[in-house]
Amino acid sequence: MRTIGKNIPRIGALERVLGTARFASDFASDEMITLMVLRSDRHHALIKKIDVSPAYEVPGCVRVFTHEDIPGVNRFGIITKDQRLLADGKVRCIGDPVCLVAAENQEAAEKALRAVKVVYEDLPPVFDPEEALRDGAPLIHEKGNELGRRIVHKGNPAKAFERADVVIERVYKTHHLEHAYLEPDGGVAYLDDNGVLVIIASTQNPHYDRKEVAELLGLEEESVRIIQAATGGGFGSKLDLNVQGFVGLATLLLRRPSKMIYSREEAFLATAKRHPLKMYYKSGADREGRLCAVEVKIIGDTGAYASYGLAVVSRSAVHATGPYEAPNVHIESIFAYTNNPYSGAMRGFGVPQIAFAHESQMDLIAQALGLEPLEIRKRNCLRVGSLTATGQELDASVGIGATLDAVADRYREFSARKRPSRSHKRRGVGLASMMYGIGNTGIQNPSTAQVELTPEGKIKVFTGAADIGQGSSTVLMQIAAEILGQDIQDIDLVVADTLYTTSAGATSASRQTYISGNAVKDAAEKLRDILLTQASSILKVNRTQLALENGLARALPDPSRTVSLKKIAEYSLKNGVPLKWQGFFDPPTTPLDPQTGQGVPYATYAFASHVVEVEVDTLTGEVEVLRVVAAHDVGKAINPENVRGQILGGVAMGVGFALMEEFVPNRTESLKDYHIPTFADMPVVEPLIVEDSEPTGPYGAKGVGEPALIPTAPAILNAIADALGARIYELPASLEVVMKAALVRSNPKNGNRST
Amino acid sequence: MRTIGKNIPRIGALERVLGTARFASDFASDEMITLMVLRSDRHHALIKKIDVSPAYEVPGCVRVFTHEDIPGVNRFGIITKDQRLLADGKVRCIGDPVCLVAAENQEAAEKALRAVKVVYEDLPPVFDPEEALRDGAPLIHEKGNELGRRIVHKGNPAKAFERADVVIERVYKTHHLEHAYLEPDGGVAYLDDNGVLVIIASTQNPHYDRKEVAELLGLEEESVRIIQAATGGGFGSKLDLNVQGFVGLATLLLRRPSKMIYSREEAFLATAKRHPLKMYYKSGADREGRLCAVEVKIIGDTGAYASYGLAVVSRSAVHATGPYEAPNVHIESIFAYTNNPYSGAMRGFGVPQIAFAHESQMDLIAQALGLEPLEIRKRNCLRVGSLTATGQELDASVGIGATLDAVADRYREFSARKRPSRSHKRRGVGLASMMYGIGNTGIQNPSTAQVELTPEGKIKVFTGAADIGQGSSTVLMQIAAEILGQDIQDIDLVVADTLYTTSAGATSASRQTYISGNAVKDAAEKLRDILLTQASSILKVNRTQLALENGLARALPDPSRTVSLKKIAEYSLKNGVPLKWQGFFDPPTTPLDPQTGQGVPYATYAFASHVVEVEVDTLTGEVEVLRVVAAHDVGKAINPENVRGQILGGVAMGVGFALMEEFVPNRTESLKDYHIPTFADMPVVEPLIVEDSEPTGPYGAKGVGEPALIPTAPAILNAIADALGARIYELPASLEVVMKAALVRSNPKNGNRST
Repeated sequence: MRTIGKNIPRIGALERVLGTARFASDFASDEMITLMVLRSDRHHALIKKIDVSPAYEVPGCVRVFTHEDIPGVNRFGIITKDQRLLADGKVRCIGDPVCLVAAENQEAAEKALRAVKVVYEDLPPVFDPEEALRDGAPLIHEKGNELGRRIVHKGNPAKAFERADVVIERVYKTHHLEHAYLEPDGGVAYLDDNGVLVIIASTQNPHYDRKEVAELLGLEEESVRIIQAATGGGFGSKLDLNVQGFVGLATLLLRRPSKMIYSREEAFLATAKRHPLKMYYKSGADREGRLCAVEVKIIGDTGAYASYGLAVVSRSAVHATGPYEAPNVHIESIFAYTNNPYSGAMRGFGVPQIAFAHESQMDLIAQALGLEPLEIRKRNCLRVGSLTATGQELDASVGIGATLDAVADRYREFSARKRPSRSHKRRGVGLASMMYGIGNTGIQNPSTAQVELTPEGKIKVFTGAADIGQGSSTVLMQIAAEILGQDIQDIDLVVADTLYTTSAGATSASRQTYISGNAVKDAAEKLRDILLTQASSILKVNRTQLALENGLARALPDPSRTVSLKKIAEYSLKNGVPLKWQGFFDPPTTPLDPQTGQGVPYATYAFASHVVEVEVDTLTGEVEVLRVVAAHDVGKAINPENVRGQILGGVAMGVGFALMEEFVPNRTESLKDYHIPTFADMPVVEPLIVEDSEPTGPYGAKGVGEPALIPTAPAILNAIADALGARIYELPASLEVVMKAALVRSNPKNGNRST
Repeated sequence: MRTIGKNIPRIGALERVLGTARFASDFASDEMITLMVLRSDRHHALIKKIDVSPAYEVPGCVRVFTHEDIPGVNRFGIITKDQRLLADGKVRCIGDPVCLVAAENQEAAEKALRAVKVVYEDLPPVFDPEEALRDGAPLIHEKGNELGRRIVHKGNPAKAFERADVVIERVYKTHHLEHAYLEPDGGVAYLDDNGVLVIIASTQNPHYDRKEVAELLGLEEESVRIIQAATGGGFGSKLDLNVQGFVGLATLLLRRPSKMIYSREEAFLATAKRHPLKMYYKSGADREGRLCAVEVKIIGDTGAYASYGLAVVSRSAVHATGPYEAPNVHIESIFAYTNNPYSGAMRGFGVPQIAFAHESQMDLIAQALGLEPLEIRKRNCLRVGSLTATGQELDASVGIGATLDAVADRYREFSARKRPSRSHKRRGVGLASMMYGIGNTGIQNPSTAQVELTPEGKIKVFTGAADIGQGSSTVLMQIAAEILGQDIQDIDLVVADTLYTTSAGATSASRQTYISGNAVKDAAEKLRDILLTQASSILKVNRTQLALENGLARALPDPSRTVSLKKIAEYSLKNGVPLKWQGFFDPPTTPLDPQTGQGVPYATYAFASHVVEVEVDTLTGEVEVLRVVAAHDVGKAINPENVRGQILGGVAMGVGFALMEEFVPNRTESLKDYHIPTFADMPVVEPLIVEDSEPTGPYGAKGVGEPALIPTAPAILNAIADALGARIYELPASLEVVMKAALVRSNPKNGNRST
């Protein structure tokens, strides 16, 4: 193939190295007004009064907006519309936006912000989700504190547990995490000559932004245009509307361009976090280690608002059995509102948390039966013909076994070189696997794209898919280039601008390669048909004997006979043949049954296995991750270097998740007290690409964005347990936690039991 | 099925009955200028001088245009650009346009026309195509008098003839025909507010018209818009540019609306005719009547211009063996320019002519071997797996045998009731079959269409396919309605307007049902996917359990759960999901080898067999066609009543072709001396629909437009031969010809021999 499977340099990389990519903060104009938000310093309170008048005393203060200024419906939220652009009488967490200050400069904005007086009447807060679900708990929203629940039930787990030879029950807990993308949220707005409100912002989903902004501001969608600025990472947080509503409001009402860039502190305070989960696991297996029953209860804390919470409710439940076949399953996932900062989408949507639990469980069962961790996974892993927890029969591209095979040698090698040690430094080896459903869970999830031959003879790809650094633009261009026989640099790309592109859905759920890749493929194939048809007419050569390549169509029997794409464009346009074609793809899924959770939530799944070698310092609690071997079944690596890049990034994030990153609500303020791995913390990573082709994927591809992260933390935790002989059930495995575990390592009854 | 196969009333029928359909002549405005063309009264002459000044003496004469006024390139012609909008120094036939008069009214235009003085210098003319091809013949165009030739060669015919048990050699001749559509050509033009030249005309191919007009007038195509007016028939003649160039020229240069409506006389004088063919046939068969070799030479007269001549060259050659398998074939088709009126496309493109020859040959072979006409056809007819003359293996939908079976009982019944008669009235029964390749011959032949769900929740179909009475709009709407579960009356149709529709290719070659039907199907299926996807999201019901019907989507498991198309439209547009989708189809063909004519000229073929019962009056030469049983394999009758209507119309035209219609160049002036069948001439027609489903067709459909005509004349001629015992080799079988044949009926050596 021409471009598929090739390491095409990432589109946009050069601009980032040269500093020419335009991020939101790079857009400026003289008349641009600066915006800042006054945020709640209360967990839960009624707003009795907002006195904005002192702010107007501040020179340079232009305007202070409250919820009363919002011309549309003051509600937003991608699934559940429970957020306010500006609080309308109540705040539900520290950080809730109360009023918006527009000023001539940053200094004036800060001063004006401080001058506003808000009178609160505190309400009793609740921070623990289990408490929040109890009767009589303070109500955060009028509809009650339960955000949602998902049950997945298959077979007869109660009966199966009776026959199980080994039953392991444990409780696992994970914590709030901050996404810590490189570029804090930001955006600018202006009114164009036609009166359209244009917003250039750091975003993962411009078409969703347009809808939300239009509703907030009471505008027709045609009157709002969202353009994705160069975006320095998102990891899910930039799926939420962050600054877009604020710049839109100020520009619309003041008729002036406006700009809002979050400081790192504001990004920490105001944007979504990873959902902390409490996971009650009970797993039963027979003597051979085959899972016979899994019972799970998941309690999630969505904080003050839902954001993507419902998606995490479902996804955590559906993935709770991991990449293993379990005939009898009962899973219940319940998420509650609390007065904590709100949680939302973050790389993996609950699966990194749940994988920590199910991978610990697998090692515990193996240990109880005297089996190797590799062996128990091989015995249980899904294969073609397997039924998942939701009763979905997997018919192709089930590469979990292949990823285990891929890491097996290194796993044995690491295990073999582990020496018994009496020193305070102990080596351990951990293995963890995962599955990850590509795309949204059991709901329609389409993408559209267009591919055009311009009158000038250039191929142009139109996609609404926001590239936030993960590389979707490159992959989509590779697909178009392959089909149309062109080089990437000869193709123009129009991306993530609601004026020129149609919706590709969100850049989330590792879906763009699979779903938008198929949409681009569909459009490009249609265009190819047309171009070959037209070339055939011009050259009088059978269509099947023509190929497209580098700006022309060529007759295969006589390669000297060619016609340029420009000529084909002229010829086609003269004949009224359209040269812009639209593609569409929507993965074949079915909704989950509300009672049993049975259904086909995803059309395809990615699989992975990581092997980790650690050295644990039992005196300091320090864990050095020495080496990570990461095998990922991506179906097909459209761009292997990008896949490896995703794996390296995912492993880094996994190291942070396992060992150091911890967002403590209302305490963690910025990167000074939120530790993300540095280069010094990075292990040697060996990415291994496994390609178990997905029949419905573009060239067999699935996805790797979130999967890259998921197995790392579980594998590290399993490695720590291996090193210490003691297991940690609550993340992060910080110095203190590891030291404590090291102290109890001689106790055979280490760990907790839920009943 | 909901609409496919149903007798949906024809779209536009009611408007025609009520008189509200707007034909070109119905468009009028106060400032509208009237146009008339001064035409050559010479066969072949140089124009020495055009003196237009006397015309300006006529009150009301606005302007007289000559070729010098043409702002673009003064050449047009759909395949061969050899026609001039206005003669530039030479005329090539009587009727050639010399200058264009624009006047305030018809009277002034006529007077001004007569006032123009043209000085000619006559050149020697040539009228016989065989003479025109000889060295030293007067040159009609500089490139020489041969328009083109097509050879189809397979096997070794010379050797095969040596082994043949019977060899029949005959020469057949057909004559010029006028289309005689109900509505003579006409159109109006105006400049719209954006300066776009809008032409509303009676046409079969608006997108081609736009291209030609733009080139003639030196405009960008975007500056020309063609709208098809209600069109009262075309039969191929309205594929040529008739009035469009004239109204365009006058309106562009005078900045006034203009109008031009041909009188019946002008339609006779100025538009294309059916190509007269001379066909030298030599057919060999074995003792069982199986064709072993066919050798054909076809000489065609394209007159002064090519028009669709090249298409007829190829199509006559490719079809020369009829619907029969002939292992050894040599066919040569050569067309020449002459100074006759030009010939072009006319229902069947040469196949009605050639079918007269091959069906006569089949009866002669049968007669020589003592076989029944039905039997010899059954023995030779194509079947699945057969190779055509061009070496194409037929893999499906070869319904010729089925059409023979369909007419067999009636054939035997008619034959049995024939009584020996000594009176001057003799009954005869004739059988004839045909094959007809759907679409253009061995060239790319695509169509595009769009289907949209409007924001108001209405389905809208966009097609460039001109409905000239044959019913394409109805068929295309039925296809869209079927796929989208709507009633026809709830779907809006936008048709044959170059501003709003893209090219569907020409309404010719019986192609719109098969090709544009597939394009509409493609677009409608895409839209259906989208609508079901969106409905699934809204209703939270699996897409496979949803159906579209009458303005809504319905959940099959719970029919009370519905969502309206309007709601779906709103929801989709809010989510940036496009609701206008484009479809495309191009039949899989391959070009014919220039040396051997081998290839796949058509993706599918229609087949038919007609049985005719005649009564011949040997004293007057009158032939009464009593009954026609017409079996047509159309793949699938999308609208059976329309298919039957086409068959009735085709039979009428076939009766005219066989017995009475004859356009004698420079003598036949109008309907007063061109006799088309009246109701009194019509036989009882029994249309029989045979459905041998075409896998690549929309719902299995092929086409019927031209096939309906083709077997009638050959069957009538075979019936006359049966009645008289004497055969006619030259059409039409007029009273004189039939009487003459009746006189020689006792001579066993009747007929001619070519060598």
